[in-house]
Amino acid sequence: MFTHMSRLQFEAKPEKPDAHYARKLQELIGGAWGEMTVTMQYLFQGWNCRMEGKYKDLIMDVATEEIGHVEMLATMVARLLEGAPAETTADMVDKDPVVAAVIGGMDPQQAIVSGGGPTLADSNGVPWNGRYIVASGNLMADFRVNVAAEAQGRLQTARLYNMTDDPGVKDMLKFNLARDTVHQKQWLAAIEELKADGLEEEIAPSALFDEEDQTHNKTIWHLSDGKHGAEGRWASGPAPDAIHEFSYVQNPKPLGSKASAPKPDPLLYATTPENLGLIEKAIKKLT
Amino acid sequence: MFTHMSRLQFEAKPEKPDAHYARKLQELIGGAWGEMTVTMQYLFQGWNCRMEGKYKDLIMDVATEEIGHVEMLATMVARLLEGAPAETTADMVDKDPVVAAVIGGMDPQQAIVSGGGPTLADSNGVPWNGRYIVASGNLMADFRVNVAAEAQGRLQTARLYNMTDDPGVKDMLKFNLARDTVHQKQWLAAIEELKADGLEEEIAPSALFDEEDQTHNKTIWHLSDGKHGAEGRWASGPAPDAIHEFSYVQNPKPLGSKASAPKPDPLLYATTPENLGLIEKAIKKLT
Amino acid sequence: MFTHMSRLQFEAKPEKPDAHYARKLQELIGGAWGEMTVTMQYLFQGWNCRMEGKYKDLIMDVATEEIGHVEMLATMVARLLEGAPAETTADMVDKDPVVAAVIGGMDPQQAIVSGGGPTLADSNGVPWNGRYIVASGNLMADFRVNVAAEAQGRLQTARLYNMTDDPGVKDMLKFNLARDTVHQKQWLAAIEELKADGLEEEIAPSALFDEEDQTHNKTIWHLSDGKHGAEGRWASGPAPDAIHEFSYVQNPKPLGSKASAPKPDPLLYATTPENLGLIEKAIKKLT
Amino acid sequence: MFTHMSRLQFEAKPEKPDAHYARKLQELIGGAWGEMTVTMQYLFQGWNCRMEGKYKDLIMDVATEEIGHVEMLATMVARLLEGAPAETTADMVDKDPVVAAVIGGMDPQQAIVSGGGPTLADSNGVPWNGRYIVASGNLMADFRVNVAAEAQGRLQTARLYNMTDDPGVKDMLKFNLARDTVHQKQWLAAIEELKADGLEEEIAPSALFDEEDQTHNKTIWHLSDGKHGAEGRWASGPAPDAIHEFSYVQNPKPLGSKASAPKPDPLLYATTPENLGLIEKAIKKLT
Amino acid sequence: MFTHMSRLQFEAKPEKPDAHYARKLQELIGGAWGEMTVTMQYLFQGWNCRMEGKYKDLIMDVATEEIGHVEMLATMVARLLEGAPAETTADMVDKDPVVAAVIGGMDPQQAIVSGGGPTLADSNGVPWNGRYIVASGNLMADFRVNVAAEAQGRLQTARLYNMTDDPGVKDMLKFNLARDTVHQKQWLAAIEELKADGLEEEIAPSALFDEEDQTHNKTIWHLSDGKHGAEGRWASGPAPDAIHEFSYVQNPKPLGSKASAPKPDPLLYATTPENLGLIEKAIKKLT
Amino acid sequence: MFTHMSRLQFEAKPEKPDAHYARKLQELIGGAWGEMTVTMQYLFQGWNCRMEGKYKDLIMDVATEEIGHVEMLATMVARLLEGAPAETTADMVDKDPVVAAVIGGMDPQQAIVSGGGPTLADSNGVPWNGRYIVASGNLMADFRVNVAAEAQGRLQTARLYNMTDDPGVKDMLKFNLARDTVHQKQWLAAIEELKADGLEEEIAPSALFDEEDQTHNKTIWHLSDGKHGAEGRWASGPAPDAIHEFSYVQNPKPLGSKASAPKPDPLLYATTPENLGLIEKAIKKLT
Repeated sequence: MFTHMSRLQFEAKPEKPDAHYARKLQELIGGAWGEMTVTMQYLFQGWNCRMEGKYKDLIMDVATEEIGHVEMLATMVARLLEGAPAETTADMVDKDPVVAAVIGGMDPQQAIVSGGGPTLADSNGVPWNGRYIVASGNLMADFRVNVAAEAQGRLQTARLYNMTDDPGVKDMLKFNLARDTVHQKQWLAAIEELKADGLEEEIAPSALFDEEDQTHNKTIWHLSDGKHGAEGRWASGPAPDAIHEFSYVQNPKPLGSKASAPKPDPLLYATTPENLGLIEKAIKKLT
Repeated sequence: MFTHMSRLQFEAKPEKPDAHYARKLQELIGGAWGEMTVTMQYLFQGWNCRMEGKYKDLIMDVATEEIGHVEMLATMVARLLEGAPAETTADMVDKDPVVAAVIGGMDPQQAIVSGGGPTLADSNGVPWNGRYIVASGNLMADFRVNVAAEAQGRLQTARLYNMTDDPGVKDMLKFNLARDTVHQKQWLAAIEELKADGLEEEIAPSALFDEEDQTHNKTIWHLSDGKHGAEGRWASGPAPDAIHEFSYVQNPKPLGSKASAPKPDPLLYATTPENLGLIEKAIKKLT
Repeated sequence: MFTHMSRLQFEAKPEKPDAHYARKLQELIGGAWGEMTVTMQYLFQGWNCRMEGKYKDLIMDVATEEIGHVEMLATMVARLLEGAPAETTADMVDKDPVVAAVIGGMDPQQAIVSGGGPTLADSNGVPWNGRYIVASGNLMADFRVNVAAEAQGRLQTARLYNMTDDPGVKDMLKFNLARDTVHQKQWLAAIEELKADGLEEEIAPSALFDEEDQTHNKTIWHLSDGKHGAEGRWASGPAPDAIHEFSYVQNPKPLGSKASAPKPDPLLYATTPENLGLIEKAIKKLT
Repeated sequence: MFTHMSRLQFEAKPEKPDAHYARKLQELIGGAWGEMTVTMQYLFQGWNCRMEGKYKDLIMDVATEEIGHVEMLATMVARLLEGAPAETTADMVDKDPVVAAVIGGMDPQQAIVSGGGPTLADSNGVPWNGRYIVASGNLMADFRVNVAAEAQGRLQTARLYNMTDDPGVKDMLKFNLARDTVHQKQWLAAIEELKADGLEEEIAPSALFDEEDQTHNKTIWHLSDGKHGAEGRWASGPAPDAIHEFSYVQNPKPLGSKASAPKPDPLLYATTPENLGLIEKAIKKLT
Repeated sequence: MFTHMSRLQFEAKPEKPDAHYARKLQELIGGAWGEMTVTMQYLFQGWNCRMEGKYKDLIMDVATEEIGHVEMLATMVARLLEGAPAETTADMVDKDPVVAAVIGGMDPQQAIVSGGGPTLADSNGVPWNGRYIVASGNLMADFRVNVAAEAQGRLQTARLYNMTDDPGVKDMLKFNLARDTVHQKQWLAAIEELKADGLEEEIAPSALFDEEDQTHNKTIWHLSDGKHGAEGRWASGPAPDAIHEFSYVQNPKPLGSKASAPKPDPLLYATTPENLGLIEKAIKKLT
Repeated sequence: MFTHMSRLQFEAKPEKPDAHYARKLQELIGGAWGEMTVTMQYLFQGWNCRMEGKYKDLIMDVATEEIGHVEMLATMVARLLEGAPAETTADMVDKDPVVAAVIGGMDPQQAIVSGGGPTLADSNGVPWNGRYIVASGNLMADFRVNVAAEAQGRLQTARLYNMTDDPGVKDMLKFNLARDTVHQKQWLAAIEELKADGLEEEIAPSALFDEEDQTHNKTIWHLSDGKHGAEGRWASGPAPDAIHEFSYVQNPKPLGSKASAPKPDPLLYATTPENLGLIEKAIKKLT
């Protein structure tokens, strides 16, 4: 069960409204790597966690914090939209190119649908959806996604940080950058902890290593004509699992036979050699 | 530019058809973490790569391989659907519960839409979409996603491996498992290489560390009531960047003021205290 | 079966083209609360109606009208796009900021995809989809949605009304506002009629009142720290069903036990305490 | 800012697992009218609320409760999936029709993607998305949607209640039914309060009544051939706004002129009468 | 403007209910090539048509018919669902495998969401969306899509025809097959008419033939290793425009230079050679 | 299996960057009729092809070429975005309307998400999805779609050609136009070849002609009030199958009986006449 306090985790006050920027900030609310994604991803990981204790407690701590980040951004967007033009005419646009540009660059749904507030969508207005999250039950596989999400999130926040010089917005984004930094670190630390605890290994899932094809679990195939693919540490020397040696296959050949689909049921009406002649006869019969 | 050879990278021949399993395999074709995702993710990362040389060449090698994996799976699905019932009736269903179950568990679009072949959708029939991929231009942030994608992909492949005992399907999945293993290793190695080359650091992006809030980039906030969140290595001691010390805030308080949205433009018709009385008057005037 | 006459239900002639506004009007065509939604919602409610007579006949009357509203808006959008720039160059944009702004603010798909006509999408270009509608078979539950749809539709139309001063557009929107008004009234009246006819009650569905938890069907839980939640008529006194008394629970406690997920099948590879040590052993065996 | 306690708002323990039912319950998690929808809808309404005080506090109380409902359902789904078959083969399916049916009827992603847990999707596996919610800033328009959401939600819960006889599941659904009941009542009461406070009127938004077309804001048009549409209270007598009299137009005629789209820019290559002959000439020139 | 009569265009009465089949028929309602697609595609083509006269009138005739097809299918689905189990329990499923299979194979939303009626979705429950349609203003390009839509529609109808032996369903599908046949013929005839009228040519749009690259508008590139690609009439001899000669390029070489992306703005934090060393220095400064 | 060479199929170098145009070009990458669609459509058609030989080889040749077109466009977009403003402020927008317009008209995700590169989305930022493609197994039905796709693709390319005067962009588009031309011709030729080979007939699928309704497979129904629908060659004379004669039904009447849905299971809580009185009694019992 959750409770809410009406103060924000961190201040979210722009010095001045900025309708263009309000649209861009939508990316951090409802983008594939926005706060809505980490909120729901961590909540579902926590609820799907099969081990009581420190991992689950950490996940729920962070998940609960992230709902508060959606709240900060939603509040910021509403404030950035203060005074955005709601009554405009073709004439005004013709006369004042700056007004024209502002209106052209706004997210129309922030006005028409939300009445000057945020939507649950990204900076192109595409709605957030539940396929952006994952909660597989395997903590190693999921923490890999969590590191990635915090890295992409910090990257987008950093880009947005440079797209404004409003001190209030920058203050909030400094906080967000800091949280993305510590959350990246924390998931990296949690990955180390999983290994130190003997719960998972470097490669996820820690299973079926015996069964997987032992010839092809250490080779990189040279399938594009770049000449430098073999120069990295992925192409020779020990792999990160400290078990295998990488190798780079310079002239790979296909191992399978020709791709082909079997004859389908005739009632599915695929075009097949069996059709030959049959159709002509059928047509003749009709005419 | 690409070229194609008609032999498969690895064999994709089931011993027997299995229409139920053909539906499940769709997850590896068009699921959020399926082969279509890694194909398009790596292609767009390669095209968006801002450094010529070993990283770009590696990305393009692997991207090109992944198109071939979609091909293997598409071929396998068509073969698993061989002989799947295309002509069935309510009577047959009533009489034979196994037929009933098979039909009930099939993906209806594999028959009705694709005529006994795969769709570009997941195991619930939801179409693959372009928001599943990311290519940010920042190699550290993107390789984090790549590790995650290969981990989730290997996890799903491992689960699917246990859901069949067809030796032909298992053979192909062993190859897939191996490729997911080596690709996980390779992206982990590439992350190390980026750091060794002095191109990126542990935390992505390697930027704005000075500007981010220095108080809040090392603390975990205790916001759920689990008691064990402070026991992991993320709660104290050195962070993975070897610069900061983690700390765990046991009784965090909100730092911001009350969340509130500003007064909107009256022409957006939000409900505000200013409405008080006005509406009554307007209604009176009308009557 | 339907028939069509080529005259519009109401005139849809702008005085002048306005490409920016053509984009905004898309919200009323293909937005979540646009005319396409009410068209398909009412059609499916009519086809799914389980009572012959006045309710079904009303639904079909209004459904049929709404197709004509999509037609009016589609025609208006095409006319607003007359003369919109189809041949433009970077130079023109550099030289004339108004041209630049107009082009920047247009929906690019109205030109590239539709050749100067409407799309079946909203003002951000996101396609309309079938999940926007509901037709549950329960008339009370559905008429509640209908009132809501007409209210949101009238609200958006009112906002759009203020964003133009073209007399032709305003004329059409006056008609649309009027229809949204009467349709709101009509669904409110139909709700009253359902109750007067003894077919449904205030709360939908009129079922399982005996079975539902009798302790928790009248209480509001105080879970956010606002102090005024208990001041409304929802917090004490008779509920709208004239049966229960509302009450406001100031310090609610969770009634359930700890959230936890059971041990999963080991073949799903969730991280569990059982993994402890096993992985180390497996790795040793491999090396 | 939010905090979380690990006990559930209400117990969520099935007596026995039931993999089929776990799929159906997804509708209440990630369906268009599920708990995720009311959670995010109320949160965004609260953040977008332009009046401090009782309305905003109520909205935030209920929003915070709803996150806890998602938690209850997510927990229930994981428990219903305990022991669901993760290792199955075509042979087993052939031999045991009940196993076949269970596997056929399961949501494959609950196993393959979530490892025996819920997804953020509906009972057909379609992901939840942000267009399901609305927060317009106008409380009357939004409370109409809220009543509708609670009505549809209670209707779906009632249907699901009859699809199980597991006493643990039924206990939780009794609680859910009760909450849907009280939430319906509460939004109905809040609508009354808005009117009593003079903030809004029956018809939303309380604006532009003077400007809307005065002829067409009280008429129902007879456009389908049902004979009973004129028999309800929507067809004559006073409208719910107590201002207008309804009337029913038996033989409505279109008021507009012929629908037509203007001549487009020739560079958009629409087919127009101007093309006549031009193409033939162009082709001749080429040959 | 539209009017509706309550009789169906053709009878839609199954002899017996069949819940499995009700799910499959959804493909013809809300699938990418279902009746909803042709309805909205033709309506938008009609409204976007830039020539008054026979073409526009034909489009509107057929568009109006198609709404009636959605109606027939919606009615049929509701009737096929009559008596589908709404009260079922795990016990019943355990005891009767046929019941288990029927429930497993049903679309759960037809019961839970629609109360025994159709949804606006396809046979996998994915909602219909507005990107399935096109109305480009160019009649040749659009009639090509129309022929394709009627061909795919007839193909799916034919497949569904074999999946039932209910005489009532088959009767309706015979009518649907016939309509798909005549509509295919009609769009093919309309394409001929466009050419005969000198309005469009074989290749759409009839424009920019002079400007397009004259070397590459007649060659097929051999990029896959199949040996038979050069054997068809597309590889040599006159092209369908009667102007060009086809040719087949056996060993095509890329004509462009190396794919590469330019140096990005440093504030977008792409990984570039310029990063070399800089990061190390920055990190040192921090420690 | 595929291989890649790093040179582009054709040059993709703009003379100057143009951020607005970079957004528009997204339509050709990730739009419904863009290069991603033809790539995946042809690949899946090839893999689903049930006849070895010239048709399959042709499909795979063209599919492989199309991946290279996505590559050309992705490269072009990155180059058009060179130097696009990544550091902007509200002040700059206020002072320079051209900067304001450029920023307003850009796709924000190309900067925030992709770091100055393309996304896998259309010109409105809506992600590409797998339902845009079809691979039915029936070559006639699929080649009809292929002709349509190349026609819509050429039309959009032609429109985009007029929206730039950058010679580098125009050069690439001339190549694209040429390829769209030859691919249209080639699918038209392949349709002829299918008929010449006796594999398929004009109408797809070449099946069930005997079974379809013989009365309604040649008539056009006059359902809209346009007067010219009967003037085309689709209204009388021989149909393109050379078997039937078209006819035009001037006053069509519905052939079916009244649309109605059956009584549903009472546990689905539809509103039915049976509810009459029951609810009142239930309510009385409660009070």
